[in-house]
Amino acid sequence: MEELASEFVTSSDPADLAFYSRDLWPRHHMAVRSGNVATHPPRAVVWPRSTDEVARLVRFAIDKRIALVPFGAGSGVCAGVLPTPQTIVVDLKRMSAIRELDKAKKTVVVEAGAMGLPFEEGLERQGLTLGHFPSSILCSTVGGWVAARSAGQASGRYGKIEDMVVALECVTGRGEIVNLTHRPHGPSLVPAIIGSEGTLAIITAAKLRLHRAPTVRGFASWSMPSMRDGWNAMREIFQSGLRPAVLRLYDPFDSVLARSGKAKKRSGHRKPGRGTAALRVILKRPQAIGELLDSRIANRALGGALVVAIFDGQDDAVMGEVARARAIVERAGTGQGKYEGEGPARKWLAHRYSVSYRQSPLFAQGLFVDTMEVAATWSRLGALYDAVRRAIGKRAFVMAHMSHAYPDGCCIYFSFAGVAAPGKDDWDAECDARYDAIWRDALAAALDAGGTIAHHHGVGRSKSARMGDELGEGGLEALRALKRAFDPHGILNPGALIEEEKP
Amino acid sequence: MEELASEFVTSSDPADLAFYSRDLWPRHHMAVRSGNVATHPPRAVVWPRSTDEVARLVRFAIDKRIALVPFGAGSGVCAGVLPTPQTIVVDLKRMSAIRELDKAKKTVVVEAGAMGLPFEEGLERQGLTLGHFPSSILCSTVGGWVAARSAGQASGRYGKIEDMVVALECVTGRGEIVNLTHRPHGPSLVPAIIGSEGTLAIITAAKLRLHRAPTVRGFASWSMPSMRDGWNAMREIFQSGLRPAVLRLYDPFDSVLARSGKAKKRSGHRKPGRGTAALRVILKRPQAIGELLDSRIANRALGGALVVAIFDGQDDAVMGEVARARAIVERAGTGQGKYEGEGPARKWLAHRYSVSYRQSPLFAQGLFVDTMEVAATWSRLGALYDAVRRAIGKRAFVMAHMSHAYPDGCCIYFSFAGVAAPGKDDWDAECDARYDAIWRDALAAALDAGGTIAHHHGVGRSKSARMGDELGEGGLEALRALKRAFDPHGILNPGALIEEEKP
Repeated sequence: MEELASEFVTSSDPADLAFYSRDLWPRHHMAVRSGNVATHPPRAVVWPRSTDEVARLVRFAIDKRIALVPFGAGSGVCAGVLPTPQTIVVDLKRMSAIRELDKAKKTVVVEAGAMGLPFEEGLERQGLTLGHFPSSILCSTVGGWVAARSAGQASGRYGKIEDMVVALECVTGRGEIVNLTHRPHGPSLVPAIIGSEGTLAIITAAKLRLHRAPTVRGFASWSMPSMRDGWNAMREIFQSGLRPAVLRLYDPFDSVLARSGKAKKRSGHRKPGRGTAALRVILKRPQAIGELLDSRIANRALGGALVVAIFDGQDDAVMGEVARARAIVERAGTGQGKYEGEGPARKWLAHRYSVSYRQSPLFAQGLFVDTMEVAATWSRLGALYDAVRRAIGKRAFVMAHMSHAYPDGCCIYFSFAGVAAPGKDDWDAECDARYDAIWRDALAAALDAGGTIAHHHGVGRSKSARMGDELGEGGLEALRALKRAFDPHGILNPGALIEEEKP
Repeated sequence: MEELASEFVTSSDPADLAFYSRDLWPRHHMAVRSGNVATHPPRAVVWPRSTDEVARLVRFAIDKRIALVPFGAGSGVCAGVLPTPQTIVVDLKRMSAIRELDKAKKTVVVEAGAMGLPFEEGLERQGLTLGHFPSSILCSTVGGWVAARSAGQASGRYGKIEDMVVALECVTGRGEIVNLTHRPHGPSLVPAIIGSEGTLAIITAAKLRLHRAPTVRGFASWSMPSMRDGWNAMREIFQSGLRPAVLRLYDPFDSVLARSGKAKKRSGHRKPGRGTAALRVILKRPQAIGELLDSRIANRALGGALVVAIFDGQDDAVMGEVARARAIVERAGTGQGKYEGEGPARKWLAHRYSVSYRQSPLFAQGLFVDTMEVAATWSRLGALYDAVRRAIGKRAFVMAHMSHAYPDGCCIYFSFAGVAAPGKDDWDAECDARYDAIWRDALAAALDAGGTIAHHHGVGRSKSARMGDELGEGGLEALRALKRAFDPHGILNPGALIEEEKP
């Protein structure tokens, strides 16, 4: 590794190796929380300062047969980052420059390591926006967004990250710098790199499409008789041609969290107290609690399902769109939503990034919180919702919201919480098995119901074993062929996205 | 070949071999017209009846080291089909079934060999539309559309073919049947197959997104002071969020053709007369004529540049969109278009497919007609227009229209005509050289001006030598890596899209 240190900014300090040993995959997070910090450290961390350095590093890795794990800001939740002592973590954050901002063409060329919020805020100061607001925006990078095929909270209007990418600069596993542009003709390789989770190439910069920052915003919210009424209304809105920046449906329990924006913010910083202890008791019997909450009375007590909508624009047309959405959601017979004013939507916006920080006090109490996001076409959505909810609900308390809708389908975002180590202080093999069983059953249920195994969190290592079932044998083989073409030495993030090939 | 005949529907009849020796690439078309019908015959033609047969055929080809050239309906104009006596042409037209039509989900699964117009008409009888109307719709197939990354006349509203494809079934050069679906997560390989011109896989079926057939249509047309005013108005319309199904801008000469719809239709069937002879005289001095037509007086005499617009929809909102477009185009200061009523747009619609059939009488007179479509972002469009027009204009009479616009850029469609064999009866090597020089200069001009070398006709063999200059070294190498991954034996349409690798 001396050779490495002579050429690159690098570290093999144990503190750095511990920090870079993971992303926020709850299974590993929990193990670390209970003291096992030493698992999965990489051999070294490198901070390349230029695309040329990345290319040199890849060639060094080919030469030494060392695997590389690209690293953004570590907010992934599917073990996309899980090094071994034979791998080097490549943190891109020293490459964060805006290389070019063209206000007239509304495009920006930005390096992969740029942190989400400062990047977006810089654009907004120029009257522009990328329109990409993942909940992780405080702890994720542009490169991470592209690698994981991220979706932001305003995807209804601006799309997912793949709708924003015009071109990518990346370094393949062959050590070649490649510029890929989405052109009007010929095969496009840009969509093959987006979502490839560092397994085909290390993304070093992206050219992104920008929009004028909205100057007018319209808010609305409704309580809905049921989740089904809620998603039917969402479908009608998107199929009518309306494109609300934000349109979210929360189930009754998730609504309680969504409605109580302020409490949420405080809880991120307070010490765990009686509430968490009570939750611990509840979570020991998740199924019973789930059934109770399913009852109509509980539903009514909690305030029912909630829909919040935010329309962005430049002029009065926004208010016309809000009116059209109201007509759809409140229509007797189909939507039957009860208008709740602007308040819940405004409150949601004020606390839009708080939820990711809510997790820590629960983890500190031996509980775990996890999320699973799947997608299906509208006609399969009900079956997918029921099946996955039932599968997770056997072992954890589960709630759900829908936050990314399209004319042809929708994503369901499940949040679930459980007792990590019942009756113990440490996360151990039994906890691993319990946690793995939740995921195994939930992924099987999603596939059986005709859903996808992910929507915008990526696949990482926690779902990679099921990629073949989702893609089909031919689809998986096509992806493997692509992997062999871009990374013939198999040095880029091996084991993420798809399982490693047996030699 | 006996082995082939025992397993597949096949022919090596000389008439079949002559027919399948080409698409409508004008250079070859002209040679054939002058009697050289025997160039480029394949060894045999095969008509597979199922995806399994295609897979068996590919494995047969791998085994025998024979190249395969997929064939739709032969309307390509860039030598995407140009067999050798060592290749087999694979005509997909016996695979033309609609496997599944889901009216509720608005999707159709159709086999690659389905012919364009009957397929679209079948959908329209169900109240649906694909929204894809290439000028070649009478002589092109669904598989050809996907392979060439086709654009239809209503691309403003419905997008290009890549916006319609949900999933593809294809057979790779490894002989494997692969189903690729555009999913919300992971790398998408669908866009790598679209536009790959039969070089990565043989497309056997496609799942396509459908729309309700429009029930209301709004028409408008304007004469414009200049082409620049015309495309500025187009840009404003698309950047305002309006999505006219059709929005076309014709230069003054192309406008004469566009305005005279009826004459156009008749000319396709009449015998060549005095008009063609006169055109022959004119085309011997294309540059002088081009300059004359550039003059203001000629411009005014011809009626100026013309914009036609058609808005599709289901209700009165369509008329509101026409009004918004009128406000943009007729605005003093920017657009300054003079409203010409609905007539020219209605006339254009009535004769929308006639132009492809206008060519034959000219070819019969020793003239040739060709087209070149390039694209650029709006800021480069003027430079691209001037440069390519000048390059072609040195040797042929050139006119242009813009028929596919986007918020960020536009396609320019050049039509040009020349004397194929001055002073001779036959197309010979000198004619080839003359024709090649036009293309060489025009492609160089397009690349120098920052444009693409194609937009929706594909690359074929007539532009493949310049793909590297457009994609850059890394981009070309990435495409070659993809080719090696999907077609390791190099048997799928070698030489199309990108030049063959030197062994």
